[in-house]
Amino acid sequence: MIKLNIGIVGLGRLGKEYANNIAYLVHNANLIAACSLVQEELDFARDTCGVKNLYSSYEDMLTNKEIDAVAIITSTDQHADQIIMAVEAGFHVFCEKPLAINIEDCYKVEKVVEKYPDQITMLGFVRRYDPSYADAKTKLDEGLVGSPFFVRSQTVDKDVFAPFQIEYCTASGGMFHDFSVHDIDLAHWFLGSDIKKVWSLGGAYRFKEFGEAGDADNVFAMCELENGTTAVIAASRVSPFGHNTFTEIMATEGNLKVGDPPRKNMLEIADVHGVRYECLETFFERFKGAFLVQIQDFVDCVLEGKQPALTMQNATKATLVANALTLSFKEKRLINVDDLVLQAK
Amino acid sequence: MIKLNIGIVGLGRLGKEYANNIAYLVHNANLIAACSLVQEELDFARDTCGVKNLYSSYEDMLTNKEIDAVAIITSTDQHADQIIMAVEAGFHVFCEKPLAINIEDCYKVEKVVEKYPDQITMLGFVRRYDPSYADAKTKLDEGLVGSPFFVRSQTVDKDVFAPFQIEYCTASGGMFHDFSVHDIDLAHWFLGSDIKKVWSLGGAYRFKEFGEAGDADNVFAMCELENGTTAVIAASRVSPFGHNTFTEIMATEGNLKVGDPPRKNMLEIADVHGVRYECLETFFERFKGAFLVQIQDFVDCVLEGKQPALTMQNATKATLVANALTLSFKEKRLINVDDLVLQAK
Amino acid sequence: MIKLNIGIVGLGRLGKEYANNIAYLVHNANLIAACSLVQEELDFARDTCGVKNLYSSYEDMLTNKEIDAVAIITSTDQHADQIIMAVEAGFHVFCEKPLAINIEDCYKVEKVVEKYPDQITMLGFVRRYDPSYADAKTKLDEGLVGSPFFVRSQTVDKDVFAPFQIEYCTASGGMFHDFSVHDIDLAHWFLGSDIKKVWSLGGAYRFKEFGEAGDADNVFAMCELENGTTAVIAASRVSPFGHNTFTEIMATEGNLKVGDPPRKNMLEIADVHGVRYECLETFFERFKGAFLVQIQDFVDCVLEGKQPALTMQNATKATLVANALTLSFKEKRLINVDDLVLQAK
Amino acid sequence: MIKLNIGIVGLGRLGKEYANNIAYLVHNANLIAACSLVQEELDFARDTCGVKNLYSSYEDMLTNKEIDAVAIITSTDQHADQIIMAVEAGFHVFCEKPLAINIEDCYKVEKVVEKYPDQITMLGFVRRYDPSYADAKTKLDEGLVGSPFFVRSQTVDKDVFAPFQIEYCTASGGMFHDFSVHDIDLAHWFLGSDIKKVWSLGGAYRFKEFGEAGDADNVFAMCELENGTTAVIAASRVSPFGHNTFTEIMATEGNLKVGDPPRKNMLEIADVHGVRYECLETFFERFKGAFLVQIQDFVDCVLEGKQPALTMQNATKATLVANALTLSFKEKRLINVDDLVLQAK
Repeated sequence: MIKLNIGIVGLGRLGKEYANNIAYLVHNANLIAACSLVQEELDFARDTCGVKNLYSSYEDMLTNKEIDAVAIITSTDQHADQIIMAVEAGFHVFCEKPLAINIEDCYKVEKVVEKYPDQITMLGFVRRYDPSYADAKTKLDEGLVGSPFFVRSQTVDKDVFAPFQIEYCTASGGMFHDFSVHDIDLAHWFLGSDIKKVWSLGGAYRFKEFGEAGDADNVFAMCELENGTTAVIAASRVSPFGHNTFTEIMATEGNLKVGDPPRKNMLEIADVHGVRYECLETFFERFKGAFLVQIQDFVDCVLEGKQPALTMQNATKATLVANALTLSFKEKRLINVDDLVLQAK
Repeated sequence: MIKLNIGIVGLGRLGKEYANNIAYLVHNANLIAACSLVQEELDFARDTCGVKNLYSSYEDMLTNKEIDAVAIITSTDQHADQIIMAVEAGFHVFCEKPLAINIEDCYKVEKVVEKYPDQITMLGFVRRYDPSYADAKTKLDEGLVGSPFFVRSQTVDKDVFAPFQIEYCTASGGMFHDFSVHDIDLAHWFLGSDIKKVWSLGGAYRFKEFGEAGDADNVFAMCELENGTTAVIAASRVSPFGHNTFTEIMATEGNLKVGDPPRKNMLEIADVHGVRYECLETFFERFKGAFLVQIQDFVDCVLEGKQPALTMQNATKATLVANALTLSFKEKRLINVDDLVLQAK
Repeated sequence: MIKLNIGIVGLGRLGKEYANNIAYLVHNANLIAACSLVQEELDFARDTCGVKNLYSSYEDMLTNKEIDAVAIITSTDQHADQIIMAVEAGFHVFCEKPLAINIEDCYKVEKVVEKYPDQITMLGFVRRYDPSYADAKTKLDEGLVGSPFFVRSQTVDKDVFAPFQIEYCTASGGMFHDFSVHDIDLAHWFLGSDIKKVWSLGGAYRFKEFGEAGDADNVFAMCELENGTTAVIAASRVSPFGHNTFTEIMATEGNLKVGDPPRKNMLEIADVHGVRYECLETFFERFKGAFLVQIQDFVDCVLEGKQPALTMQNATKATLVANALTLSFKEKRLINVDDLVLQAK
Repeated sequence: MIKLNIGIVGLGRLGKEYANNIAYLVHNANLIAACSLVQEELDFARDTCGVKNLYSSYEDMLTNKEIDAVAIITSTDQHADQIIMAVEAGFHVFCEKPLAINIEDCYKVEKVVEKYPDQITMLGFVRRYDPSYADAKTKLDEGLVGSPFFVRSQTVDKDVFAPFQIEYCTASGGMFHDFSVHDIDLAHWFLGSDIKKVWSLGGAYRFKEFGEAGDADNVFAMCELENGTTAVIAASRVSPFGHNTFTEIMATEGNLKVGDPPRKNMLEIADVHGVRYECLETFFERFKGAFLVQIQDFVDCVLEGKQPALTMQNATKATLVANALTLSFKEKRLINVDDLVLQAK
């Protein structure tokens, strides 16, 4: 069996999950290299995943010609440069979402990628790979519920990560880039059109620290799409009862809803609090399976020489809308997405 | 509009519900008489329901020739005699379940009732009148799920009534007569056959006082029916989270389940305890609507001169099986229902 | 017992429900008069509800001095005038929502009502009287889930009424006045503040006839409130699977959700389609109990001489926002509610 | 890292799952040998799992001294002999449930195993390793719901495997050995006591072929335990809507329920059939994760030199009760489990 040799850069919380998936669970891949500035992360790669080639310099890793593909799981501000470097060095590239925070960076990546059509480049919008989301998309495409005209989607995490998130939120571009970019991509995917106009609201209702950092702990937005359909998006960092990410699609002949209720497992408890189930805590738990299916798909795409369904243009559009939502939130007005395109070009 | 004049006997907790239903909510009935040995109950009839003719003697009430029908909501040990007296005095009769505790009493009532085919006599197995149970029966009869072969049914009340129930349990004949008689009737109704063999178990797991009174706080039973189908029955007086009465029917092409989950209302709470709903507390709350539909049906039957679907024979059979279950519980062995019939005849 | 004598005007679909409730189910009320231009409706009042005084002229009915209170269940365009006439004639008034379509009419009513503080005037926002909504409000006020910052609320009816609704939609002021006014009032009620800015979208996705009539079959809106909280509202006339009205409240320590799932009853079916429950079809079915609780509250308020919790100002504000939503939908822009106030004054 | 070298015997449907788990997903194990009489199964081991040592003779495989442990996934009638051979040859042993159909065989295994206390022997009762069942057990042990007194448990498979099962059912000892043995073990585990008396019923309600083969397509049983608690068990081969395995525990302060509803994934569909979710089809899908956790636990037990929580005695007791249930079903009477023990000894 031919196996794909992968080098990973970034082994934080999510990077470790990727490293483990590539090293052990993707049958047709080997994790042969890892790059990080953090010694603990390199130790993890060597000791837990058996990675032999360890690098503290990304440039150095890109000189290793045994590597076929690079997996980029670093912070968002490094994505664009690292993708461009890897593509120009001749590697296939998988990169965690979002593509970038600046639209300029997105266009820069698009242009480079266009020049290398034989290399596979894939952005990780993991929710498309969740079996329940994929089932919804299949049923929608088969016409089970007719023509979709509304998407209601939210990304909600439990409050356990709050202090960590306060530090993180500026670097990541804020909630619309970090959370809502998933819901934006799903709206585009399910409604078959692009968002053209947005209005967003929100606040630091629980922890004023998020507000002081220029961000929020809960945000809400309404979006008009080119084809006359609508998406309503919400996100929260501070859900008191657990992770609660769901998406509902209204269509002319029925509705589809994915992810609600966010049950931790198949145990139901009946006691003095009523009949209840406990909830998942993190998107790790919720999408653990999807992260594996996604990287497996990347490896299969590379080995079969086909580009993935989600293109760089899709990723750029998601960033574009995340920017529009951020601007709307800050300037408290309706934003035309096209105005941002014009500015960026 | 012709209205039926009703006299009620017994105005305890459930009797008051009946009195109110007849006085105000059944359009084609008048509550014109009430009988009780308890002054407070007669006061209720007069003050709350506007009843004009009040009696402390049942015989006296039966001399009132303005009355068309009698509603008997007394304790079980009085049912048989009161039905017989009313029928022989020329009245239509509605009586709360069960018909009696002794099978001999059941047969005695059956014989008297047979002699008066023009008078309507009805036993109150309220669950048949609950809209959800009725919907299940309709769908079953229409063949939606094929041929039924198994019924799992339970009658479960919240623990709030425990002290009251300890006093009550001997008079009422114990849990099988008081709780399970509903599930027995439902098994007969849904499976289209009669129970012929039973084995029952149980105990006073939470309050040993029930055990000391010769009864239990939880009972379980398995029943074989004449047509080769099976019913499994459970009952509890002491559910910690609320009323939890449900019935599941397995059939060759699908299942039907009624009453699960036992939600108090349409509110869902998501908080530190998980995602949860609160439960109904009592069978009053759960079957409030069904009690009204039931007495309305009795009135309609009388005014239209037709016997109700549930016959005295159905009621006798339910008592018969409740006896068999009680005997099995006490003697710890399989019981053939026919053996009790032979003994009783 | 003192009973309130009520005269009703308007006996269409909903008016008949009110007439029946007042005639039979509200203990301390008598339905003594009815007014309609439609003979069938007067026949209903006389034959089904036993009403003795029948009028084809509203002015005539208001001369009947046996009447204590008037219930107005006519089309929205008549509400304001009929309220004013009844109040000025000395009657207590109950009127179905909404107060009016024009804000000028609302202010006119407010002014008249102010002059008669001893007369009870009540607008029928029925959802506040649904036991599940009331339970949510109680738990919110008790602090169970902390401080609320987001309401997601929708009013969705099954597609069975579509043709009827096409005719009706212009007279009623469109979907925002007919459907969303409930969700607007709930957002105000639960979030403890008023909507100040709105953006709405929607379309005639299923029946283009609604679009041709200047309305929609589905609408969506986002609203910013004075206190920095957010409400997202949706409405549909054409749900393929049934009535699906729900409201979710996000708060700092938990969420409350009312009305989801919209089960028809307590029956669950498991067959080749999966595990499923059937849905309610109409808001009549869903809020049947609440309509009774509401009119009972009106009668109690009158007999006890206290004004209801929901004031004319609340009703005016709901109409104001419905106007803003309608304008936003038509002019495709953000609307400041205050701008409408200024125009109207 | 020290890794355990495993040889597998039996690579049917379930054996292939085990082979794949051991080869790829258990980090500290290698699958180095495979034995089967079927060439396709050996091809699978070599081609899909990369197994190098292939055997058509079990005796031959046991001569390979590189092997540390043997995994037995053959048909039930071979379990006892193959366990004994492997243990006597010095190997650690994992064997799929049930231990055997004959109690004599169980005792024979027990005696051999006792002589080799340093070798790890484990029977695969997979449900104990399902995260939801494990969560229930943990919460029960922590006292969350008080003291348990009733278990209701069922093993239900979709009707897709029917023809295959008709051939299979005699070899496997029938439904009580093949399906109910799981529920028996769970009853023992959750209730902390052993079943002493049983009565079972059932029939071939959907496919008479099962009846003709001396078995059933649906069975039901009630069991009394030594400590006065009760278990009610059901099993079906022919569920029309899918796999539906669940277990409910009633305890003095609350209930725990595992596995209900048996949702295929997190997608909910609302259309003309109502609001619904599709179901899992097979126990493979339902317990895919648990099969992996289980074999991982075996490997960990061996490497850490500790015996697993479930002992040979537990496995023998489950077979004993499965025999009692089968006998009760055939002879239509209550069976004392002790009577079977006396016969067997």
